[in-house]
Amino acid sequence: MSIIPDSHTDLLDRPLFGHLGTVRDDGEPQVNPMWFAFDGEFLRFTNTTTRRKYRNVTAEPRISLSINDPDQPYRYLEVRGVVERIEPDTEGVFFAELANRYRLDMALPPGDVEHRVVYVVRPTAVSYQ
Amino acid sequence: MSIIPDSHTDLLDRPLFGHLGTVRDDGEPQVNPMWFAFDGEFLRFTNTTTRRKYRNVTAEPRISLSINDPDQPYRYLEVRGVVERIEPDTEGVFFAELANRYRLDMALPPGDVEHRVVYVVRPTAVSYQ
Repeated sequence: MSIIPDSHTDLLDRPLFGHLGTVRDDGEPQVNPMWFAFDGEFLRFTNTTTRRKYRNVTAEPRISLSINDPDQPYRYLEVRGVVERIEPDTEGVFFAELANRYRLDMALPPGDVEHRVVYVVRPTAVSYQ
Repeated sequence: MSIIPDSHTDLLDRPLFGHLGTVRDDGEPQVNPMWFAFDGEFLRFTNTTTRRKYRNVTAEPRISLSINDPDQPYRYLEVRGVVERIEPDTEGVFFAELANRYRLDMALPPGDVEHRVVYVVRPTAVSYQ
């Protein structure tokens, strides 16, 4: 059973950019556009261990993702959740999956592949309209 | 002197949706799509005193706003800032200004106008690409 409402799963299935909120170590929020994928249970994001976001989610694993529908901008989904685990992606397998999903034509693996990780996020709450 | 880079001010001038990150009283981040306006110094948002976001920003005034360019989705601007003051908008004047900016054809003032407020946010930091 997913907590994502059936009426809004298309916003996770389509290759839309999400805006990922994390909390910095001084308590300030940070929001950045991010690629993501959803498998029906977990949201996954690619990032590197050298980024500020990595420091944020290792200290405070709770996140929020906001996506709105470019065709109907008042239609949106917010998924709050927790980074349940962080997996290495030093071969860039997950990165390549996302690059394909978002149809980004780039040389693979990316230059920072040695630092690549996957945030595996369990949704805990939603808001939507 | 604004801290917004000239290269990215168009993202604040165009009527794009921003994704506003706030922090809930238990420390969890929350992100929602929002209308906004920028006058060169302050970002302004309309909200009501009955919303969860109002409780968030009155307890923790630091926010973050993320906007990406629908025409070039890897182009984005994040503005972090602080809610410097909250002004009443119980006549719906600012709400009407935003409804016009976003070309939303609706009856004015909105039904919740008696609870309407304006968040006046001073930018403190940016990230962009």
